[in-house]
Amino acid sequence: MTYTLWYWPEIQGRGEFVRLALEAGGIDYVDAAREQGSDALLADLNARHGRTPFAPPYLETPEGLVIAHVAAILAYLGERHMLAPSELADRLWIEQLQLTIADCVTEAHNVHHPVGTGDYYEDQKPEAARAAQTFRDERMPKFLGHFDDAAAHDESGAFLMGPRWTYADCSLFQLVEGLRYAFPQRMAAIEGDYPALMALHRAVSDLAGVKAYLASDRRLAFNEMGIFRHYPELDGA
Amino acid sequence: MTYTLWYWPEIQGRGEFVRLALEAGGIDYVDAAREQGSDALLADLNARHGRTPFAPPYLETPEGLVIAHVAAILAYLGERHMLAPSELADRLWIEQLQLTIADCVTEAHNVHHPVGTGDYYEDQKPEAARAAQTFRDERMPKFLGHFDDAAAHDESGAFLMGPRWTYADCSLFQLVEGLRYAFPQRMAAIEGDYPALMALHRAVSDLAGVKAYLASDRRLAFNEMGIFRHYPELDGA
Repeated sequence: MTYTLWYWPEIQGRGEFVRLALEAGGIDYVDAAREQGSDALLADLNARHGRTPFAPPYLETPEGLVIAHVAAILAYLGERHMLAPSELADRLWIEQLQLTIADCVTEAHNVHHPVGTGDYYEDQKPEAARAAQTFRDERMPKFLGHFDDAAAHDESGAFLMGPRWTYADCSLFQLVEGLRYAFPQRMAAIEGDYPALMALHRAVSDLAGVKAYLASDRRLAFNEMGIFRHYPELDGA
Repeated sequence: MTYTLWYWPEIQGRGEFVRLALEAGGIDYVDAAREQGSDALLADLNARHGRTPFAPPYLETPEGLVIAHVAAILAYLGERHMLAPSELADRLWIEQLQLTIADCVTEAHNVHHPVGTGDYYEDQKPEAARAAQTFRDERMPKFLGHFDDAAAHDESGAFLMGPRWTYADCSLFQLVEGLRYAFPQRMAAIEGDYPALMALHRAVSDLAGVKAYLASDRRLAFNEMGIFRHYPELDGA
């Protein structure tokens, strides 16, 4: 009953949203490329035919089902391991929030790679500076405000669904972590505007599975190969 | 038993992926902002509290459930109206393809708005030219090749699931339409490399519901306010 996660072994990236849910839920998994390296990930991806993942991360279930896309992986895990509510309206709301988180992650990546996904950041610095300003000024408040409203909605506890955490809570924790790493000045200036989201972040960091994971060597550090990158010239209050 | 779709009334945009599935499936819906205007859409969005959509499109079901995000809306309609297979592995595959389509749509939008989502295209033309080249040279072949493999997988018919269409087939039709509109030279140069995808596109255009919709005044024309925009300077073989 062990899952196999395939993702780049040097970065948190999009894979981290899956790792966090697995760790918080105490679900057995192998982080395959961390054991076998990037070449093994590429070899695995290239050996698949037919229903091939478009890109990592992808998760192989104990039964051999392969699922790509963070939102799809988490929806599956949510249903199977009760990491999300089962009632339709609640479950759909968590799925929508996860898709909005995915959009925010894509925009955070676009900040340092606005014009050439295949080029280095160093080759698109002026463009990145402009993209960063839009992201800091317009997009961060819009996304964070939305998630703060969602976190404030159920007053019976700090999580989106009140007293019980879901996979989307773990993802919001990671989003806040990533934004704090990439934009420390900007986050210091505005995060006080989002008290419910910050309380949610603290509550997730207190979950036993998350706490143990963050203290382990399984948790990679943020770095400038991932999605959330700290380039001081792209930050600002 | 009527759905209410809320989306910008002047453009195809992301809403078109929902419209097409509803039309192909012969499902009753009201395209609310086309009847009442953009101000009514904004008023509706602002009047919602609690579980508010992050952005249009969003769909209100006959029971009053509100769902945002194209992939979530289509997954819901797929299950309820049999616009997708019910077997788990098949259903998950269709959901993953839809999420990959969503990523391609986001990248197509990024081409003309790489550094400032709130700014005009005219204020980011050099950046857009560079983003367009990456998209044409690297990303279009990667996405189209992936979808062609998916279309070729089941040889018992032109659709992703062989003889029976799904909502993701409708979305692939729309993606090809959009790319042809935005990048006619590039598509003319490469679309012959993707025969299964092009056969799928033709098969969708022959569906009775789609054919009737495309011939009606409900189908808006592509224009330079939507996601797929034809700026000749961003195209090239």
